[in-house]
Amino acid sequence: MKVTFILAEAALETLPASLQKDPRVINSCKKLGKKPENCLLDKSLHYWAMDRLKDREKRGRPDIAYRVIQDVASSPLYKKGMMNFFVHTYNDYIIQFGENVRPPHAYFRFEGLMLDLFEKKVIKDPEGKVLLQLKRGKVKDVLNETGKSSAVGFDVDGEKVTYEQAAAHVANYGAFVIGGFPAGNFSKETSSIFSKKLSFSQETIETDTVACRLIYELEKILLFTK
Amino acid sequence: MKVTFILAEAALETLPASLQKDPRVINSCKKLGKKPENCLLDKSLHYWAMDRLKDREKRGRPDIAYRVIQDVASSPLYKKGMMNFFVHTYNDYIIQFGENVRPPHAYFRFEGLMLDLFEKKVIKDPEGKVLLQLKRGKVKDVLNETGKSSAVGFDVDGEKVTYEQAAAHVANYGAFVIGGFPAGNFSKETSSIFSKKLSFSQETIETDTVACRLIYELEKILLFTK
Repeated sequence: MKVTFILAEAALETLPASLQKDPRVINSCKKLGKKPENCLLDKSLHYWAMDRLKDREKRGRPDIAYRVIQDVASSPLYKKGMMNFFVHTYNDYIIQFGENVRPPHAYFRFEGLMLDLFEKKVIKDPEGKVLLQLKRGKVKDVLNETGKSSAVGFDVDGEKVTYEQAAAHVANYGAFVIGGFPAGNFSKETSSIFSKKLSFSQETIETDTVACRLIYELEKILLFTK
Repeated sequence: MKVTFILAEAALETLPASLQKDPRVINSCKKLGKKPENCLLDKSLHYWAMDRLKDREKRGRPDIAYRVIQDVASSPLYKKGMMNFFVHTYNDYIIQFGENVRPPHAYFRFEGLMLDLFEKKVIKDPEGKVLLQLKRGKVKDVLNETGKSSAVGFDVDGEKVTYEQAAAHVANYGAFVIGGFPAGNFSKETSSIFSKKLSFSQETIETDTVACRLIYELEKILLFTK
């Protein structure tokens, strides 16, 4: 059995055109030796320039997706080919992960890889095997492709469960969605595909901590018999 | 009960003096808008210049410590004040973490913070509370300070256990050590303080995945009654 994991509405995007000409943005890119077109939107760098950006509290945190990608890629569940992994972004792009993708250790290489992907739409290894593929689409499009119409969603106002209980639901359902943004709520479009809404804790917990723990509990069900 | 976690021999250091004058290093720093004295040693950037560096396979991976620090800082065990956390580095520096330290989201800010710490030896919050403190020392010095003479060590040739079994040992013993380097072995000095050597899997598993899962199982024992 293969589980589908979608990191949804991830705060991962290239610098919006409206910001590329902002002198503050140009300046902060310059300090890092880069041009604005070679930057991902990043709240740590572009905070002041983001004030008129729609949904700005949900955007500009590419580190969240990066850390979840690293968690997934180092998990035995993914390495053994038992998890389909997708990153859906705020701007409705979908990044599909091939098998055995090993993300770069250094953030600046990850940023370069993402910019390359947004430009070329596909990243292959030296043998021509597709590692990453980019297309337009929404969370429901990913689900449709995997033959599902809904998924278990993790959201602050969901039913309180432990990671073990959540993993049992996910293993049973076959697909789950975690938000890849720092604050705010899922769009109505995304939350409409939740068959069930679960939550771990009233206190905020980092997305990658949730992903790491949930994948680990899933492995206990799917890879090992207790 | 408070558990002590030491990330040992972490591949985290400023650029060695011998490399600061290497034209390849100067060049790669320049591309990122930095001077060599404002860089951490990083295999992704300084690989070719590291060829004559002692123990080079163990060094130049500050991302490992960064990710483990993020895992610790977002764990309920640390947030509730039930874990002492220390990073011991390859060059025998010890970074002691205060309570409720929140590491930066962006890697470049983490790098800046570490460089600041290596220079000033202490980082305080605006109210004067000590967040990070740097001193010279070895793993055994950290243990002595917490009143212990040995710790549970995680090493590839240790006794094979599950994370649950490992957490039971650690909870019982009160202190554990994970290696913060990408390849090679613990120094004799570090491994001499292991009361018990444990291992999770024959296949290599990322340090931060180990840390995340082990801390989670520790929480089950120390924070919740099942």
